Amino acid sequence: MSRLTAGIIVIGDEILSGRTKDTNSNFIAKRLIKSGIQLEEIIIIHDNKETIIKNVLSFHKKYNYVFTTGGIGPTHDDITSESIALAFNQKYCFHSKAYKILKEYYSKGEFNEGRKKMAKMPEKAKLILNPLTAAPGFIVKNIYVLPGVPLIMKKMFLNLLKYIEKGTPKKIVTININLYESSIAKGLKKIQIDHPNCSIGSYPYFNYITNKGGVNIVISSWTLLNLDDIIKKIENMISLLDGKSSIV
Amino acid sequence: MSRLTAGIIVIGDEILSGRTKDTNSNFIAKRLIKSGIQLEEIIIIHDNKETIIKNVLSFHKKYNYVFTTGGIGPTHDDITSESIALAFNQKYCFHSKAYKILKEYYSKGEFNEGRKKMAKMPEKAKLILNPLTAAPGFIVKNIYVLPGVPLIMKKMFLNLLKYIEKGTPKKIVTININLYESSIAKGLKKIQIDHPNCSIGSYPYFNYITNKGGVNIVISSWTLLNLDDIIKKIENMISLLDGKSSIV
Repeated sequence: MSRLTAGIIVIGDEILSGRTKDTNSNFIAKRLIKSGIQLEEIIIIHDNKETIIKNVLSFHKKYNYVFTTGGIGPTHDDITSESIALAFNQKYCFHSKAYKILKEYYSKGEFNEGRKKMAKMPEKAKLILNPLTAAPGFIVKNIYVLPGVPLIMKKMFLNLLKYIEKGTPKKIVTININLYESSIAKGLKKIQIDHPNCSIGSYPYFNYITNKGGVNIVISSWTLLNLDDIIKKIENMISLLDGKSSIV
Repeated sequence: MSRLTAGIIVIGDEILSGRTKDTNSNFIAKRLIKSGIQLEEIIIIHDNKETIIKNVLSFHKKYNYVFTTGGIGPTHDDITSESIALAFNQKYCFHSKAYKILKEYYSKGEFNEGRKKMAKMPEKAKLILNPLTAAPGFIVKNIYVLPGVPLIMKKMFLNLLKYIEKGTPKKIVTININLYESSIAKGLKKIQIDHPNCSIGSYPYFNYITNKGGVNIVISSWTLLNLDDIIKKIENMISLLDGKSSIV
Protein backbone atom coordinates (compact mmCIF):
# COMPACT_ATOMS: atom_id res chain seq x y z
CA MET A 1 0.00 0.00 0.00
CA SER A 2 1.41 3.35 -0.94
CA ARG A 3 1.53 6.00 1.73
CA LEU A 4 -0.94 8.89 1.84
CA THR A 5 0.78 12.21 1.21
CA ALA A 6 -0.15 15.85 1.67
CA GLY A 7 0.99 19.37 0.86
CA ILE A 8 -0.02 22.67 2.45
CA ILE A 9 -0.37 25.93 0.52
CA VAL A 10 -0.46 28.98 2.78
CA ILE A 11 -1.90 31.91 0.84
CA GLY A 12 -1.36 35.44 2.10
CA ASP A 13 0.73 38.56 1.52
CA GLU A 14 0.61 39.14 5.28
CA ILE A 15 2.74 36.05 5.93
CA LEU A 16 5.36 36.98 3.32
CA SER A 17 5.60 40.53 4.67
CA GLY A 18 6.26 39.10 8.13
CA ARG A 19 3.21 40.91 9.53
CA THR A 20 1.48 37.68 10.48
CA LYS A 21 3.04 34.46 11.75
CA ASP A 22 1.71 31.34 10.10
CA THR A 23 0.63 29.03 12.93
CA ASN A 24 -1.80 27.02 10.81
CA SER A 25 0.68 24.82 8.99
CA ASN A 26 2.30 23.61 12.22
CA PHE A 27 -1.13 22.75 13.60
CA ILE A 28 -1.99 20.77 10.46
CA ALA A 29 1.45 19.11 10.31
CA LYS A 30 1.14 17.69 13.83
CA ARG A 31 -2.27 16.17 13.11
CA LEU A 32 -1.30 14.72 9.73
CA ILE A 33 1.61 12.69 11.04
CA LYS A 34 -0.64 11.23 13.75
CA SER A 35 -3.19 10.39 11.07
CA GLY A 36 -0.69 8.43 9.00
CA ILE A 37 -0.50 11.10 6.29
CA GLN A 38 2.98 12.19 5.23
CA LEU A 39 3.31 15.95 4.84
CA GLU A 40 5.77 16.46 1.98
CA GLU A 41 5.87 20.20 1.44
CA ILE A 42 4.57 23.54 2.73
CA ILE A 43 4.60 26.54 0.45
CA ILE A 44 3.75 30.12 1.37
CA ILE A 45 2.68 32.31 -1.54
CA HIS A 46 1.22 35.73 -2.36
CA ASP A 47 -2.47 36.51 -2.96
CA ASN A 48 -1.92 36.35 -6.70
CA LYS A 49 -4.18 34.41 -9.07
CA GLU A 50 -1.50 33.02 -11.37
CA THR A 51 0.69 31.95 -8.44
CA ILE A 52 -2.22 30.27 -6.67
CA ILE A 53 -3.36 28.43 -9.82
CA LYS A 54 0.14 27.23 -10.69
CA ASN A 55 0.84 25.88 -7.20
CA VAL A 56 -2.60 24.37 -6.65
CA LEU A 57 -2.34 22.42 -9.93
CA SER A 58 1.20 21.29 -9.15
CA PHE A 59 0.28 20.10 -5.62
CA HIS A 60 -2.95 18.53 -6.97
CA LYS A 61 -0.86 16.19 -9.12
CA LYS A 62 1.84 15.47 -6.54
CA TYR A 63 -0.07 14.75 -3.32
CA ASN A 64 -3.15 12.87 -2.12
CA TYR A 65 -4.33 15.80 -0.03
CA VAL A 66 -3.75 19.50 -0.56
CA PHE A 67 -4.75 21.91 2.19
CA THR A 68 -4.90 25.63 1.48
CA THR A 69 -5.30 28.28 4.15
CA GLY A 70 -6.28 31.92 3.65
CA GLY A 71 -7.94 34.12 1.07
CA ILE A 72 -11.60 33.09 1.38
CA GLY A 73 -12.93 36.14 3.25
CA PRO A 74 -15.29 38.92 2.14
CA THR A 75 -12.84 41.48 0.75
CA HIS A 76 -11.29 42.08 -2.68
CA ASP A 77 -7.92 40.67 -1.61
CA ASP A 78 -9.49 37.26 -0.92
CA ILE A 79 -9.01 35.53 -4.26
CA THR A 80 -8.38 31.91 -3.35
CA SER A 81 -11.88 30.64 -4.25
CA GLU A 82 -11.90 32.33 -7.64
CA SER A 83 -8.37 31.11 -8.40
CA ILE A 84 -9.29 27.50 -7.58
CA ALA A 85 -12.34 27.72 -9.84
CA LEU A 86 -10.04 28.96 -12.61
CA ALA A 87 -7.48 26.23 -11.92
CA PHE A 88 -10.05 23.49 -12.50
CA ASN A 89 -12.08 25.25 -15.22
CA GLN A 90 -15.14 25.49 -13.03
CA LYS A 91 -17.62 28.35 -12.94
CA TYR A 92 -17.09 30.71 -9.99
CA CYS A 93 -20.62 31.36 -8.74
CA PHE A 94 -22.92 31.38 -5.73
CA HIS A 95 -23.03 27.95 -4.08
CA SER A 96 -26.68 27.44 -3.16
CA LYS A 97 -26.00 25.57 0.09
CA ALA A 98 -23.31 28.03 1.22
CA TYR A 99 -25.60 30.93 0.32
CA LYS A 100 -28.38 29.41 2.40
CA ILE A 101 -26.11 28.88 5.41
CA LEU A 102 -24.88 32.47 5.33
CA LYS A 103 -28.33 33.91 4.73
CA GLU A 104 -29.65 32.06 7.78
CA TYR A 105 -26.66 33.08 9.92
CA TYR A 106 -26.92 36.81 9.22
CA SER A 107 -30.04 38.87 9.84
CA LYS A 108 -31.61 40.56 6.83
CA GLY A 109 -29.77 43.89 6.79
CA GLU A 110 -26.50 42.17 7.69
CA PHE A 111 -26.24 39.91 4.66
CA ASN A 112 -24.33 42.43 2.58
CA GLU A 113 -22.29 42.13 -0.61
CA GLY A 114 -19.07 41.19 1.23
CA ARG A 115 -20.77 38.38 3.11
CA LYS A 116 -22.49 37.15 -0.03
CA LYS A 117 -19.06 36.90 -1.67
CA MET A 118 -18.18 34.20 0.86
CA ALA A 119 -20.84 31.99 -0.77
CA LYS A 120 -19.09 32.26 -4.16
CA MET A 121 -17.11 29.14 -4.96
CA PRO A 122 -16.15 26.78 -7.76
CA GLU A 123 -19.40 25.35 -9.14
CA LYS A 124 -18.86 21.75 -8.03
CA ALA A 125 -17.40 22.46 -4.58
CA LYS A 126 -18.41 20.39 -1.56
CA LEU A 127 -18.64 22.37 1.65
CA ILE A 128 -16.47 22.20 4.77
CA LEU A 129 -18.69 23.48 7.56
CA ASN A 130 -17.62 26.30 9.87
CA PRO A 131 -19.05 25.91 13.39
CA LEU A 132 -17.84 29.34 14.53
CA THR A 133 -18.62 32.00 11.95
CA ALA A 134 -20.74 30.11 9.38
CA ALA A 135 -18.75 30.97 6.22
CA PRO A 136 -17.79 27.53 4.90
CA GLY A 137 -14.59 26.25 3.34
CA PHE A 138 -14.82 23.81 0.46
CA ILE A 139 -13.39 20.80 -1.33
CA VAL A 140 -12.61 20.60 -5.05
CA LYS A 141 -10.96 17.36 -6.21
CA ASN A 142 -8.22 16.74 -3.61
CA ILE A 143 -7.96 20.42 -2.60
CA TYR A 144 -9.28 21.31 0.87
CA VAL A 145 -9.81 25.05 1.09
CA LEU A 146 -9.69 26.51 4.60
CA PRO A 147 -9.72 30.06 6.00
CA GLY A 148 -6.63 31.78 7.38
CA VAL A 149 -7.95 32.93 10.78
CA PRO A 150 -6.29 30.34 13.06
CA LEU A 151 -9.13 29.77 15.52
CA ILE A 152 -11.62 29.11 12.73
CA MET A 153 -9.19 27.15 10.56
CA LYS A 154 -8.31 24.81 13.42
CA LYS A 155 -11.93 23.98 14.30
CA MET A 156 -12.73 23.31 10.66
CA PHE A 157 -9.61 21.22 10.06
CA LEU A 158 -10.24 18.99 13.09
CA ASN A 159 -13.75 18.37 11.89
CA LEU A 160 -12.62 17.70 8.33
CA LEU A 161 -9.98 15.26 9.55
CA LYS A 162 -12.69 12.93 10.86
CA TYR A 163 -13.96 12.33 7.34
CA ILE A 164 -10.82 11.79 5.27
CA GLU A 165 -8.99 8.51 4.73
CA LYS A 166 -6.12 8.02 7.13
CA GLY A 167 -3.11 5.70 7.27
CA THR A 168 -1.09 4.07 10.00
CA PRO A 169 0.47 6.80 12.16
CA LYS A 170 4.22 7.19 11.86
CA LYS A 171 6.11 5.47 14.69
CA ILE A 172 8.17 8.09 16.53
CA VAL A 173 10.41 7.80 19.57
CA THR A 174 12.46 10.69 20.95
CA ILE A 175 15.56 10.02 23.05
CA ASN A 176 16.91 12.94 25.02
CA ILE A 177 20.65 12.88 25.75
CA ASN A 178 23.06 15.13 27.62
CA LEU A 179 25.96 15.06 25.13
CA TYR A 180 27.02 17.38 22.30
CA GLU A 181 25.67 16.53 18.88
CA SER A 182 29.13 16.27 17.37
CA SER A 183 30.20 13.54 19.79
CA ILE A 184 27.40 11.22 18.71
CA ALA A 185 27.57 12.05 14.99
CA LYS A 186 29.80 9.12 14.01
CA GLY A 187 27.91 6.46 15.97
CA LEU A 188 24.53 7.75 14.92
CA LYS A 189 25.49 7.71 11.25
CA LYS A 190 26.46 4.05 11.53
CA ILE A 191 23.13 3.16 13.15
CA GLN A 192 21.26 5.08 10.45
CA ILE A 193 23.13 3.20 7.70
CA ASP A 194 22.33 -0.14 9.36
CA HIS A 195 18.62 0.79 9.55
CA PRO A 196 17.55 2.40 6.30
CA ASN A 197 13.84 1.81 7.01
CA CYS A 198 13.83 4.39 9.75
CA SER A 199 14.88 7.98 9.79
CA ILE A 200 17.11 9.23 12.61
CA GLY A 201 17.09 12.98 13.19
CA SER A 202 19.36 14.82 15.58
CA TYR A 203 18.20 18.13 17.11
CA PRO A 204 20.51 20.00 19.46
CA TYR A 205 19.19 22.59 21.88
CA PHE A 206 20.51 24.92 24.51
CA ASN A 207 18.44 26.34 27.33
CA TYR A 208 19.82 29.75 28.31
CA ILE A 209 17.83 29.78 31.55
CA THR A 210 19.04 26.47 32.96
CA ASN A 211 22.34 26.86 31.05
CA LYS A 212 22.06 23.25 29.97
CA GLY A 213 22.07 21.78 26.50
CA GLY A 214 21.65 18.42 24.89
CA VAL A 215 20.27 16.66 21.87
CA ASN A 216 16.92 15.15 21.04
CA ILE A 217 17.37 12.13 18.81
CA VAL A 218 14.17 11.43 16.93
CA ILE A 219 13.75 7.95 15.45
CA SER A 220 10.80 7.57 13.14
CA SER A 221 9.47 5.05 10.68
CA TRP A 222 6.39 4.56 8.55
CA THR A 223 7.09 0.86 8.00
CA LEU A 224 8.88 -0.79 10.94
CA LEU A 225 6.67 -2.63 13.43
CA ASN A 226 8.75 -1.43 16.36
CA LEU A 227 11.86 0.64 16.99
CA ASP A 228 13.15 -1.25 20.06
CA ASP A 229 16.25 -2.57 18.35
CA ILE A 230 17.34 0.86 17.18
CA ILE A 231 16.55 2.49 20.53
CA LYS A 232 18.72 -0.12 22.29
CA LYS A 233 21.64 0.53 19.93
CA ILE A 234 21.44 4.28 20.48
CA GLU A 235 21.18 3.90 24.26
CA ASN A 236 24.23 1.60 24.24
CA MET A 237 26.22 4.09 22.19
CA ILE A 238 25.33 6.93 24.58
CA SER A 239 26.31 4.92 27.65
CA LEU A 240 29.67 3.97 26.05
CA LEU A 241 30.28 7.73 25.64
CA ASP A 242 29.47 8.19 29.37
CA GLY A 243 26.29 10.05 28.48
CA LYS A 244 22.81 9.76 29.87
CA SER A 245 19.74 9.04 27.77
CA SER A 246 16.04 8.90 28.41
CA ILE A 247 13.02 8.34 26.22
CA VAL A 248 10.85 11.45 26.29
CA MET B 1 15.06 49.75 -11.73
CA SER B 2 13.65 46.30 -11.15
CA ARG B 3 12.86 45.32 -7.60
CA LEU B 4 15.09 42.99 -5.60
CA THR B 5 13.35 39.69 -4.84
CA ALA B 6 13.98 36.81 -2.46
CA GLY B 7 12.85 33.30 -1.62
CA ILE B 8 13.35 31.27 1.55
CA ILE B 9 13.90 27.51 1.60
CA VAL B 10 13.38 25.98 5.05
CA ILE B 11 15.02 22.56 5.14
CA GLY B 12 14.05 20.09 7.84
CA ASP B 13 11.97 16.99 8.49
CA GLU B 14 11.30 18.36 11.98
CA ILE B 15 9.25 21.25 10.59
CA LEU B 16 7.16 19.01 8.32
CA SER B 17 6.47 16.58 11.17
CA GLY B 18 5.23 19.51 13.26
CA ARG B 19 7.83 18.79 15.94
CA THR B 20 9.51 22.16 15.49
CA LYS B 21 7.89 25.50 14.66
CA ASP B 22 9.70 27.47 11.98
CA THR B 23 10.32 30.91 13.45
CA ASN B 24 13.22 31.73 11.13
CA SER B 25 11.26 32.62 8.02
CA ASN B 26 9.09 35.19 9.83
CA PHE B 27 12.25 36.79 11.23
CA ILE B 28 13.81 36.99 7.77
CA ALA B 29 10.55 38.18 6.15
CA LYS B 30 10.23 41.18 8.49
CA ARG B 31 13.78 42.32 7.78
CA LEU B 32 13.59 41.84 4.02
CA ILE B 33 10.58 44.10 3.56
CA LYS B 34 12.33 46.82 5.58
CA SER B 35 15.38 46.36 3.38
CA GLY B 36 13.45 46.88 0.17
CA ILE B 37 13.67 43.23 -0.84
CA GLN B 38 10.41 41.58 -1.86
CA LEU B 39 9.96 38.10 -0.40
CA GLU B 40 8.10 36.12 -3.05
CA GLU B 41 7.91 32.61 -1.66
CA ILE B 42 8.74 30.42 1.33
CA ILE B 43 9.02 26.68 0.88
CA ILE B 44 9.47 24.08 3.60
CA ILE B 45 10.98 20.79 2.42
CA HIS B 46 12.39 17.50 3.71
CA ASP B 47 16.06 16.71 4.31
CA ASN B 48 16.27 14.98 0.95
CA LYS B 49 19.05 15.59 -1.56
CA GLU B 50 16.95 15.53 -4.72
CA THR B 51 14.29 17.80 -3.21
CA ILE B 52 16.89 20.28 -1.97
CA ILE B 53 18.72 20.37 -5.31
CA LYS B 54 15.52 20.80 -7.33
CA ASN B 55 14.22 23.67 -5.19
CA VAL B 56 17.57 25.43 -4.81
CA LEU B 57 18.05 25.48 -8.59
CA SER B 58 14.49 26.67 -9.17
CA PHE B 59 14.78 29.50 -6.61
CA HIS B 60 18.28 30.36 -7.89
CA LYS B 61 16.79 31.20 -11.27
CA LYS B 62 13.68 32.96 -9.98
CA TYR B 63 14.93 35.29 -7.24
CA ASN B 64 17.82 37.67 -6.55
CA TYR B 65 18.41 36.23 -3.10
CA VAL B 66 17.76 32.73 -1.82
CA PHE B 67 18.07 32.06 1.89
CA THR B 68 18.16 28.48 3.15
CA THR B 69 17.88 27.51 6.81
CA GLY B 70 18.74 24.17 8.37
CA GLY B 71 20.76 21.08 7.61
CA ILE B 72 24.35 22.29 8.08
CA GLY B 73 25.12 20.66 11.44
CA PRO B 74 27.49 17.83 12.34
CA THR B 75 25.24 14.78 11.94
CA HIS B 76 24.37 12.46 9.04
CA ASP B 77 20.92 14.06 8.59
CA ASP B 78 22.52 17.44 7.79
CA ILE B 79 22.79 17.25 4.02
CA THR B 80 22.19 20.82 2.87
CA SER B 81 25.85 21.66 2.15
CA GLU B 82 26.46 18.51 0.13
CA SER B 83 23.21 19.02 -1.80
CA ILE B 84 24.14 22.59 -2.73
CA ALA B 85 27.56 21.45 -3.93
CA LEU B 86 25.79 18.87 -6.12
CA ALA B 87 23.28 21.46 -7.38
CA PHE B 88 26.07 23.68 -8.73
CA ASN B 89 28.50 20.93 -9.76
CA GLN B 90 31.05 21.96 -7.19
CA LYS B 91 33.31 19.65 -5.22
CA TYR B 92 32.06 19.02 -1.64
CA CYS B 93 35.24 19.28 0.42
CA PHE B 94 36.92 20.86 3.44
CA HIS B 95 36.89 24.64 3.15
CA SER B 96 40.31 25.74 4.39
CA LYS B 97 39.10 28.94 6.08
CA ALA B 98 36.12 27.22 7.73
CA TYR B 99 38.37 24.37 8.86
CA LYS B 100 40.78 26.87 10.41
CA ILE B 101 37.98 28.72 12.24
CA LEU B 102 36.61 25.50 13.72
CA LYS B 103 40.03 24.13 14.60
CA GLU B 104 40.81 27.32 16.52
CA TYR B 105 37.43 27.33 18.26
CA TYR B 106 37.62 23.77 19.56
CA SER B 107 40.43 22.47 21.73
CA LYS B 108 42.46 19.59 20.35
CA GLY B 109 40.50 16.60 21.56
CA GLU B 110 37.21 18.33 20.85
CA PHE B 111 37.69 18.79 17.11
CA ASN B 112 36.08 15.46 16.23
CA GLU B 113 34.71 14.03 12.98
CA GLY B 114 31.26 15.61 13.43
CA ARG B 115 32.71 19.06 13.96
CA LYS B 116 35.08 18.66 11.04
CA LYS B 117 32.05 17.86 8.85
CA MET B 118 30.83 21.42 9.48
CA ALA B 119 33.86 22.67 7.52
CA LYS B 120 32.81 20.67 4.45
CA MET B 121 31.19 22.88 1.83
CA PRO B 122 30.92 23.49 -1.88
CA GLU B 123 34.46 24.21 -3.13
CA LYS B 124 33.89 27.86 -4.08
CA ALA B 125 31.75 28.87 -1.08
CA LYS B 126 32.27 32.22 0.63
CA LEU B 127 31.76 32.10 4.39
CA ILE B 128 29.02 33.68 6.51
CA LEU B 129 30.59 34.08 9.93
CA ASN B 130 28.94 32.72 13.08
CA PRO B 131 29.67 34.87 16.15
CA LEU B 132 28.09 32.40 18.58
CA THR B 133 29.21 28.86 17.87
CA ALA B 134 31.89 29.33 15.17
CA ALA B 135 30.51 26.91 12.53
CA PRO B 136 30.00 29.20 9.51
CA GLY B 137 27.25 29.36 6.94
CA PHE B 138 28.17 30.06 3.35
CA ILE B 139 27.29 31.71 0.05
CA VAL B 140 27.26 30.01 -3.35
CA LYS B 141 26.04 32.17 -6.27
CA ASN B 142 22.88 33.84 -4.90
CA ILE B 143 22.23 31.14 -2.27
CA TYR B 144 22.80 32.14 1.35
CA VAL B 145 23.07 29.04 3.50
CA LEU B 146 22.20 29.51 7.16
CA PRO B 147 21.77 27.15 10.13
CA GLY B 148 18.38 26.15 11.54
CA VAL B 149 18.94 26.92 15.24
CA PRO B 150 17.00 30.21 15.54
CA LEU B 151 19.32 32.06 17.91
CA ILE B 152 22.35 31.39 15.70
CA MET B 153 20.49 31.89 12.42
CA LYS B 154 19.19 35.29 13.52
CA LYS B 155 22.61 36.63 14.56
CA MET B 156 24.14 35.45 11.31
CA PHE B 157 21.32 36.81 9.16
CA LEU B 158 21.45 40.28 10.73
CA ASN B 159 25.17 40.40 10.10
CA LEU B 160 24.79 39.16 6.53
CA LEU B 161 22.08 41.73 5.84
CA LYS B 162 24.61 44.54 6.33
CA TYR B 163 26.58 43.40 3.31
CA ILE B 164 23.93 42.68 0.67
CA GLU B 165 22.43 45.16 -1.76
CA LYS B 166 19.15 46.61 -0.55
CA GLY B 167 16.32 48.53 -2.19
CA THR B 168 13.88 51.21 -1.07
CA PRO B 169 11.78 49.82 1.80
CA LYS B 170 8.15 49.13 1.00
CA LYS B 171 5.85 51.91 2.19
CA ILE B 172 3.33 50.45 4.64
CA VAL B 173 0.55 52.09 6.63
CA THR B 174 -1.89 50.18 8.83
CA ILE B 175 -5.30 51.64 9.66
CA ASN B 176 -7.17 50.02 12.51
CA ILE B 177 -10.96 50.21 12.36
CA ASN B 178 -13.81 49.06 14.60
CA LEU B 179 -16.15 47.72 11.88
CA TYR B 180 -16.75 44.26 10.45
CA GLU B 181 -14.70 43.36 7.39
CA SER B 182 -17.80 42.66 5.31
CA SER B 183 -19.18 46.18 5.78
CA ILE B 184 -16.08 47.79 4.26
CA ALA B 185 -15.57 45.22 1.50
CA LYS B 186 -17.41 47.15 -1.22
CA GLY B 187 -15.82 50.53 -0.53
CA LEU B 188 -12.36 49.07 -0.10
CA LYS B 189 -12.58 47.24 -3.40
CA LYS B 190 -13.38 50.50 -5.19
CA ILE B 191 -10.40 52.26 -3.60
CA GLN B 192 -8.15 49.34 -4.57
CA ILE B 193 -9.35 49.49 -8.20
CA ASP B 194 -8.70 53.26 -8.28
CA HIS B 195 -5.16 52.76 -6.93
CA PRO B 196 -3.56 49.81 -8.69
CA ASN B 197 -0.03 50.88 -7.65
CA CYS B 198 -0.69 49.98 -4.05
CA SER B 199 -1.91 46.83 -2.42
CA ILE B 200 -4.72 47.03 0.14
CA GLY B 201 -5.02 44.08 2.49
CA SER B 202 -7.80 43.56 4.99
CA TYR B 203 -7.14 41.53 8.15
CA PRO B 204 -9.98 40.95 10.61
CA TYR B 205 -9.29 39.97 14.21
CA PHE B 206 -11.20 39.19 17.33
CA ASN B 207 -9.81 39.48 20.82
CA TYR B 208 -11.50 36.93 23.07
CA ILE B 209 -10.20 38.62 26.21
CA THR B 210 -11.50 42.13 25.52
CA ASN B 211 -14.37 40.66 23.48
CA LYS B 212 -13.72 43.27 20.80
CA GLY B 213 -12.97 42.82 17.15
CA GLY B 214 -12.08 44.96 14.20
CA VAL B 215 -10.02 45.03 11.03
CA ASN B 216 -6.52 46.11 10.24
CA ILE B 217 -6.36 47.60 6.77
CA VAL B 218 -2.82 47.43 5.46
CA ILE B 219 -1.93 49.73 2.56
CA SER B 220 1.44 49.08 1.00
CA SER B 221 3.36 50.10 -2.07
CA TRP B 222 6.82 49.63 -3.53
CA THR B 223 6.44 52.53 -5.95
CA LEU B 224 4.19 55.33 -4.63
CA LEU B 225 5.96 58.27 -3.01
CA ASN B 226 3.31 58.59 -0.35
CA LEU B 227 0.02 56.92 0.60
CA ASP B 228 -1.77 60.03 1.99
CA ASP B 229 -4.39 60.15 -0.72
CA ILE B 230 -5.41 56.54 -0.22
CA ILE B 231 -5.38 56.83 3.58
CA LYS B 232 -7.72 59.84 3.36
CA LYS B 233 -10.14 57.96 1.11
CA ILE B 234 -10.25 55.00 3.48
CA GLU B 235 -10.72 57.22 6.53
CA ASN B 236 -13.59 59.03 4.76
CA MET B 237 -15.26 55.75 3.89
CA ILE B 238 -15.01 54.53 7.49
CA SER B 239 -16.47 57.74 8.90
CA LEU B 240 -19.39 57.57 6.41
CA LEU B 241 -20.10 54.10 7.83
CA ASP B 242 -20.10 55.59 11.37
CA GLY B 243 -16.90 53.72 12.15
CA LYS B 244 -13.72 54.85 13.86
CA SER B 245 -10.29 54.61 12.34
CA SER B 246 -6.77 55.24 13.53
CA ILE B 247 -3.36 54.79 12.00
CA VAL B 248 -1.39 52.25 14.05
